Amino acid sequence: MAGELEGQRVAILAADGVERVELERPQRALEDAGAHTDVVSIERGEIQARDHDLVDAGTFTVNRLIDDVSVDDYEALLLPGGTVNPDKLRMQPSVVKFVRAFVQSGKPVASICHGPWHFVEADVARGRRLTSWPSVRTDLRNAGAEVVDEEVVTDGNITTSRSPDDLPAFCERIVQEFARTPQSTGTESRS
Amino acid sequence: MAGELEGQRVAILAADGVERVELERPQRALEDAGAHTDVVSIERGEIQARDHDLVDAGTFTVNRLIDDVSVDDYEALLLPGGTVNPDKLRMQPSVVKFVRAFVQSGKPVASICHGPWHFVEADVARGRRLTSWPSVRTDLRNAGAEVVDEEVVTDGNITTSRSPDDLPAFCERIVQEFARTPQSTGTESRS
Repeated sequence: MAGELEGQRVAILAADGVERVELERPQRALEDAGAHTDVVSIERGEIQARDHDLVDAGTFTVNRLIDDVSVDDYEALLLPGGTVNPDKLRMQPSVVKFVRAFVQSGKPVASICHGPWHFVEADVARGRRLTSWPSVRTDLRNAGAEVVDEEVVTDGNITTSRSPDDLPAFCERIVQEFARTPQSTGTESRS
Repeated sequence: MAGELEGQRVAILAADGVERVELERPQRALEDAGAHTDVVSIERGEIQARDHDLVDAGTFTVNRLIDDVSVDDYEALLLPGGTVNPDKLRMQPSVVKFVRAFVQSGKPVASICHGPWHFVEADVARGRRLTSWPSVRTDLRNAGAEVVDEEVVTDGNITTSRSPDDLPAFCERIVQEFARTPQSTGTESRS
């Protein structure tokens, strides 16, 4: 199945506090399937990764700034967790606008663990069947989502998982779902 | 005004990831006013503190476990922030039950920064005028709160502030508010 994402560009939206494995392992799965990925963030340089929220786990290089990208630049969006990461990102209007526009575009969006807070802040959780890390579920319900406790859930263009333990199922599913994307947006300008 | 909290017992509910100054400075203000404080948590030993969520900032010793305390043991409750701290605590049914019971008891409860997530999880935010760190505000609104952007807000028995910058106003207010508590509960059994 290698190559099913050949030519695809995927934005990985992350900030300080990102849970290392929730960025690294989906990134590897997407790249192994042929996708190009960019780490998109709110400041230049590097972001600090964590293991289990509290243990230093190196850094990731930021490839592009949120203010310099548009939905047209990407075929799919990945929102990893780590408690502090989405908590920082959801306060940025440019991030919230990007996430909302991406979900509304119909292109595939995937999120794991604490990442689904983005759907609360962008007000795109309403009526969606979603899962997340347990602490986020009351916030998802209050934002109108139907919350389920399953390792991976796809509802329309949104795929969610609960925790790092779900990464095998999550990585397999997002490669499948991202391969479904209509590759009509911006492909002419890909260099 | 020293001594206005003489004989009072205050529970400070916290876990790993607590923002150091949001525990330490209110604790000092309360103790300077004569209160006895206990750090109450979900595991024995120590909890790891942070500065700005990401920088190691030492530890606090846990004085009592949540499963061993009741609302009757305390005259007031303090809920500090730090993103990871309330995120961990809100997943524990014993914590949620304690916070809900405390708010419903009418005794004073104070929270700062990310701490107000407790009120979402305990479903006691509805109709309350509250403030918090900006990232928590959508969750508070979705839980039915009226969210305001002020350095310190008291609505009934709940006092809230936004961030470490508000600590001077927060500390002054909680000493005032905790002094109002009816000291009728459990005082007979204080040793």
